[in-house]
Amino acid sequence: MSNNEILAQLTDILEQRKNAEPDSSYVASLYAKGLDAILKKIGEEATETVMAAKDIEAATDNSEMKGKLVYEVADLWFHTMVLLAQQELSADDVLKELARRFGVSGLDEKAARK
Amino acid sequence: MSNNEILAQLTDILEQRKNAEPDSSYVASLYAKGLDAILKKIGEEATETVMAAKDIEAATDNSEMKGKLVYEVADLWFHTMVLLAQQELSADDVLKELARRFGVSGLDEKAARK
Amino acid sequence: MSNNEILAQLTDILEQRKNAEPDSSYVASLYAKGLDAILKKIGEEATETVMAAKDIEAATDNSEMKGKLVYEVADLWFHTMVLLAQQELSADDVLKELARRFGVSGLDEKAARK
Amino acid sequence: MSNNEILAQLTDILEQRKNAEPDSSYVASLYAKGLDAILKKIGEEATETVMAAKDIEAATDNSEMKGKLVYEVADLWFHTMVLLAQQELSADDVLKELARRFGVSGLDEKAARK
Repeated sequence: MSNNEILAQLTDILEQRKNAEPDSSYVASLYAKGLDAILKKIGEEATETVMAAKDIEAATDNSEMKGKLVYEVADLWFHTMVLLAQQELSADDVLKELARRFGVSGLDEKAARK
Repeated sequence: MSNNEILAQLTDILEQRKNAEPDSSYVASLYAKGLDAILKKIGEEATETVMAAKDIEAATDNSEMKGKLVYEVADLWFHTMVLLAQQELSADDVLKELARRFGVSGLDEKAARK
Repeated sequence: MSNNEILAQLTDILEQRKNAEPDSSYVASLYAKGLDAILKKIGEEATETVMAAKDIEAATDNSEMKGKLVYEVADLWFHTMVLLAQQELSADDVLKELARRFGVSGLDEKAARK
Repeated sequence: MSNNEILAQLTDILEQRKNAEPDSSYVASLYAKGLDAILKKIGEEATETVMAAKDIEAATDNSEMKGKLVYEVADLWFHTMVLLAQQELSADDVLKELARRFGVSGLDEKAARK
């Protein structure tokens, strides 16, 4: 499966939910609650990411714990994407910033692979 | 510019830095300091994301502030990617988890666009 | 009103709740949920403290906002006290550590005031 | 040693540092850097508190780890006190809020002990 388009698709979904009734979905309810509710979730998910990573460190068999970490990071990224959408920004802006910093670009890289 | 491959390229860079001397780059120094140093950065960047979002809310002209938010979210995503790399995981695992939750896949979406 | 004994009294209350049924009080339910639930609350309350402080900064009349900040810091201190109690520690240990750092002691100070 | 007066003494110290040169002490430098620098520290110390608590959970002999937790909670309380001082508030306001919530007061308690 290609993972390339997942953030773009999720961005589309987050945009669509802006027009939805507050009680129609979790994201719609977050938009309705407003900025502080979204930021509170980001603080929560960052803390849960830290705890999940410490649980891996402590575990002897950490395969299940690694799944938990992925789950928490996904939660954290997701809620930052809700924040970006609420501010008329998107994951694309974040990816461009990361590309700028590290001097990489999908286009150049693809060309280089040929 | 295509943003599709940026996370994959950044993942490659983070893997390469694992073999680098601790003082050769910021990422190499983070790996050398270990898990707690990486987690501390995630806590910091989550806090800075929250502050940047509150600054947008307070600003009358918030265009510059929006750039700041993108910058902080990029910092947060970047440090979670360092954490994932240190744990032999990657952004790809996070994207798969997001795809699973939202019932989306890059492949289906691309096909649907044709 | 003297505020001197408040942390000591709150410490007593937190100890008493250890023997209570999980559904008898909020604190008892937190103990029953365990360490991660308490830590998650600390992450949450730290984030809410940050947001409340940013709200003061943005407000023209910030008297109400200052009450909000006090409320959130109280929440944060309270949940760290629940954590300390759960770990067989207390606010007293924290006060001793602060006294050690700053070279102060309640006893000396009281003597000096005479 | 009585711990009663420690927060009051620390409050006095934090007030005195407001008139100090930025490079004369750590607290004076924090005031000079401003609100965001103080809030960033609160986010950091909350994260370090969470990590220290997880280290206790994972340790077989956790006595040293418990000292670490006390140290981190002291850091967290201290930086919230810097924030309160910067906002013309103090630990006393937080203690009053805690007393109000739990229906306790130093005065009543002292009387009750007689």
